[in-house]
Amino acid sequence: MEVKTIGFIGTGVMGRSMAGHLIDAGFKLKVYNRTKEKASSLIDKGALWASSPKEAAENCDVVISIVGYPADVKEVWLGDNGAIQAMKPGAIGIDMTTSTPALAKELTKEGLKHGVAICDAPVTGGDVGARNAALTILFGGSAAAFCSLEPVFKAMGKTYVRFGESGSGQYAKICNQIAIAAGMMSVCEALITARKTGLDEELVLKTLSGGAAGSFSLSSYGPRILKGDFNPGFYVKHFVKDMKIAVEVAKENNLQLPGLELALKLYERLIEKGDGDLGTQALFKLYLN
Amino acid sequence: MEVKTIGFIGTGVMGRSMAGHLIDAGFKLKVYNRTKEKASSLIDKGALWASSPKEAAENCDVVISIVGYPADVKEVWLGDNGAIQAMKPGAIGIDMTTSTPALAKELTKEGLKHGVAICDAPVTGGDVGARNAALTILFGGSAAAFCSLEPVFKAMGKTYVRFGESGSGQYAKICNQIAIAAGMMSVCEALITARKTGLDEELVLKTLSGGAAGSFSLSSYGPRILKGDFNPGFYVKHFVKDMKIAVEVAKENNLQLPGLELALKLYERLIEKGDGDLGTQALFKLYLN
Repeated sequence: MEVKTIGFIGTGVMGRSMAGHLIDAGFKLKVYNRTKEKASSLIDKGALWASSPKEAAENCDVVISIVGYPADVKEVWLGDNGAIQAMKPGAIGIDMTTSTPALAKELTKEGLKHGVAICDAPVTGGDVGARNAALTILFGGSAAAFCSLEPVFKAMGKTYVRFGESGSGQYAKICNQIAIAAGMMSVCEALITARKTGLDEELVLKTLSGGAAGSFSLSSYGPRILKGDFNPGFYVKHFVKDMKIAVEVAKENNLQLPGLELALKLYERLIEKGDGDLGTQALFKLYLN
Repeated sequence: MEVKTIGFIGTGVMGRSMAGHLIDAGFKLKVYNRTKEKASSLIDKGALWASSPKEAAENCDVVISIVGYPADVKEVWLGDNGAIQAMKPGAIGIDMTTSTPALAKELTKEGLKHGVAICDAPVTGGDVGARNAALTILFGGSAAAFCSLEPVFKAMGKTYVRFGESGSGQYAKICNQIAIAAGMMSVCEALITARKTGLDEELVLKTLSGGAAGSFSLSSYGPRILKGDFNPGFYVKHFVKDMKIAVEVAKENNLQLPGLELALKLYERLIEKGDGDLGTQALFKLYLN
């Protein structure tokens, strides 16, 4: 199947950039978002406005969603005005929200009843990756769908990898978030120790980043932490959602993940303090007593 | 001062490589180690054998130690056969063991009584960094000593940074170990989740390493973990020593570092299971079953 038309559901920080790249790549877009204003720049670029997920999905070759929480995902695909019912036979749906593997599998199953393939393709790379079309796209779904979607993924991402059948993209994303979770404590704890022991923080950050303690989190969030810049690249509240999904999946697999659990606990404390809308590097604030 | 002769105390995995590079760089070496056999390759290369730290220190421009625990550091510098008493006036001592900032300061103070400057310069980069003369050297001590030592550091390391007066090299190393500690849980927890959810582990590792979850630990230990290779690059028992020093320093500074504390607890459990002589990536074993 050659993809020409795309229904795009969810034009928040991530979705807006991604949809913009799809328009630039020549796809015809229909966009839906809960708040219409957030889609205005895309409409200016030539996207059609759809007043519901259902309307966004009609007659499109591909339907993409990237929304907030699993409940939102369920609503936009399976709700009264959901997308699946309106998709044309043979169309492909992609949920790019970080959501649960169980819901991914449920969507696939519901899709099959309507003759459409629903896949999961959560992304990593954050707002910057979305802006620069440099996302990593973690795909779960049929090999045939993956093949058809290559031009779509190419427009938004630098790397796109198929991990297996439906749900496996979400599992891979969970692994990704787990690989970040406890590491964020390490970053904050190293930097607060540098500060409290009177070291030159910038020098510590620079020296450590190049060695065995180096990480994307240290290099990318360290400088913002030292500047006291806690603005969101990736929201605390969304990271907590992801970690909760990860904890659930761990439970289902009889896994004990104490590092993840501790990180989740600290981030939940941050939300209790009213900092859910800050960026994940705001974990540092917990260490500043 | 131009450095020509170096007394080198401690020719274990790290010290042996480092001393070898010093010989290659043209310095005259006298070496001491508790077990003489471990110095034999250096003696073959032309190093003189010293039967005590004291003998190693005599008439040398620089004396270097890299041994196991703070108690060993104290012994080789301040013990009955310790180095300081035998150093010539104006000589420089460098403890490159990861040890406590308090002991570093004590050595400096004792050195001053004998007219010698004792500095701290713990390293990061592990056995591979030592072998390739690519260590990062974290220096605490006077600017004048740092300046004199540049040719010595250059022979062993790729990066050498002065963080301030005596003890600050140790503080920087503590920050480094803290930046690694909780992150090791993240690495293990992500990989065990990939395995238990049935994903292609190698593909997960490769995909995640290049993105926001990327870290030196993931790239360097991930492949060994997936192969079940728990051989030591860096010993569990030494990492536990370092983390205990870090916890002490945190306490002294009224810092709560829950990520570090949890990592230490898990690594201590690993030692209880008899795995103290494995490499730090063996943390993964705790997550199996």
